[in-house]
Amino acid sequence: MRIALDAMGGDHGPEELITGAILALEETDLELTLVGDESAIGACLETLNPAGSVSKRMQVLHTTEVVEMGESPVDAIRKKKNSSVMLAFDLAKKGEAAAAVSAGNSGATLAAGIRKLGRIKNISRPGIANAFPTLKKPVIMMDVGANVDCRPQHLFQFAVMASAFAGVYNIKSPRVGILSIGEEAGKGNQLVKETWDLLSESSLNFIGNVEGRDIYMGDVDVIVCDGFVGNISLKVSEGLVEAATQMFREGIMSSTIAKLGYLLARPVFKKIKKRVDYAEYGGAPLLGLNGTGIICHGKSNSVAIKNAILVAQQVVEIEVNNKIIASLAENTAASQVVS
Amino acid sequence: MRIALDAMGGDHGPEELITGAILALEETDLELTLVGDESAIGACLETLNPAGSVSKRMQVLHTTEVVEMGESPVDAIRKKKNSSVMLAFDLAKKGEAAAAVSAGNSGATLAAGIRKLGRIKNISRPGIANAFPTLKKPVIMMDVGANVDCRPQHLFQFAVMASAFAGVYNIKSPRVGILSIGEEAGKGNQLVKETWDLLSESSLNFIGNVEGRDIYMGDVDVIVCDGFVGNISLKVSEGLVEAATQMFREGIMSSTIAKLGYLLARPVFKKIKKRVDYAEYGGAPLLGLNGTGIICHGKSNSVAIKNAILVAQQVVEIEVNNKIIASLAENTAASQVVS
Repeated sequence: MRIALDAMGGDHGPEELITGAILALEETDLELTLVGDESAIGACLETLNPAGSVSKRMQVLHTTEVVEMGESPVDAIRKKKNSSVMLAFDLAKKGEAAAAVSAGNSGATLAAGIRKLGRIKNISRPGIANAFPTLKKPVIMMDVGANVDCRPQHLFQFAVMASAFAGVYNIKSPRVGILSIGEEAGKGNQLVKETWDLLSESSLNFIGNVEGRDIYMGDVDVIVCDGFVGNISLKVSEGLVEAATQMFREGIMSSTIAKLGYLLARPVFKKIKKRVDYAEYGGAPLLGLNGTGIICHGKSNSVAIKNAILVAQQVVEIEVNNKIIASLAENTAASQVVS
Repeated sequence: MRIALDAMGGDHGPEELITGAILALEETDLELTLVGDESAIGACLETLNPAGSVSKRMQVLHTTEVVEMGESPVDAIRKKKNSSVMLAFDLAKKGEAAAAVSAGNSGATLAAGIRKLGRIKNISRPGIANAFPTLKKPVIMMDVGANVDCRPQHLFQFAVMASAFAGVYNIKSPRVGILSIGEEAGKGNQLVKETWDLLSESSLNFIGNVEGRDIYMGDVDVIVCDGFVGNISLKVSEGLVEAATQMFREGIMSSTIAKLGYLLARPVFKKIKKRVDYAEYGGAPLLGLNGTGIICHGKSNSVAIKNAILVAQQVVEIEVNNKIIASLAENTAASQVVS
């Protein structure tokens, strides 16, 4: 299987991305096409893989056009037809790659994916699914930012798509919850109430509403919400971890004894960090595309890139899209395209 | 100044509430009326304050009727006219107390407050403001759960009300942000975009959109959002702290060296805990009432109750409601009641 990697996206530049690509090749028998500036990629490879141990499974598709982080996605994909992200999805479209992975401008990645691959039949709106670490298995939240104003039908389709994706984490018959404020039926806003009616008549394993605090408990597998609420949940979590880490660092540095204590307890911190580290979960799949695309956080390090490539491989191997199509066929109420 | 305390609400029973009341009396020259079962309250007081040092400043208003945690708020306040929460707000209505404080059923507390005190003129919807700990001063988010489906006008009024309340934390000219996904104008859902237009023409210190991760950074003072998003942000934060604490506890218990390290670093943990502890911030004010009401978390301990009483005192002393009225007069566009 060959996967296309946008080698120009991300905050850390090609070196971090290519390190991730090499890690992925070392762990699997995948083939990769790196899309980006040939000379920059070549220079990185000379430094990072001087023996050329993985170079046989790595091709380069040359382009110097890049979508910048701050650019308007719609403008960018219209004007920059030869940008690395557009060419990566073009490979996926032509069947020369099974999936495209990018850590660049998320909006442009989504737009490029939709433009090049189109949508699965009857899916109204592709969205972004994100795996959150929990006390048990990861929980998959969808949508985390692609669709800010949603209708109940969209959330129903997110439930169908994220349930299919849950197979990547070996979750069978995933429990589906609607993110709301209060667990009882009837608690929540209008969107939640109408989505409840649709999901309760579906073939999905619908368990009702879940609250914000349930995200990290691990007693639900798939949480659906609109992209506004999902993105805020994600960012609130990131901000809280960042603030707590900073408070902790300041506290530890203020006392020698505390510093010693920290050193002794450090393996525990490392273990927790690994357990909750976004990098361990790889990228977030764009579900609903007629093909496979993975968005990575702009700040992704090489481990995150490696895991995103592995997630892409998994999505293809377990045939997430065929599972989505089968589930839509079972749930005809979900199979209506709604703008 | 006299404050009415619902002595029957909360998960821990009267003893915790009354301990909080005694702490508040010891720190201030307030007077309190405890509303609840006279004999239960009497028994608690005998144990908790045998010398009767604060009893002169404490009255009891007897009732045995209680709104339970799971009850429908609307039904409860209609049927239970003599419930402790209704009588507490009745004292506030009659001017026999300057404010009412309850740790009982939040919905019923809100409903009782609106029923007994009514709304400030031109305020469409009272809401719940909540102070979040940050790396700097607390940030006040409104609404965190009273109003799930909101219109731009409501968020504008939340901004007016929460800005007035910020005075309790000595925040002058509070910076107001709209919770959204992306900082630029035009990023967010329909509600955010229309609220942006209203706030940018107001006399408030509007700084634009803020993202979920900004809540804990302390670079904004007031964050407005609908009660659905606000409640989820609050609960996501609670859940994350709970899950992280549990992971940490399990990790520490698994190794003697880590346990020793934890003991050495414990003062740092304690300091952070105090800094982020909801109990330190007291209750959440119901803003928009024609009077003063404070909602406490059901799980409030005595320190949280004490601080809620102190917040009530502060809200009255700095005349938050008069500040709201003055701000509405300055912002005539905010002064339109919208259903």
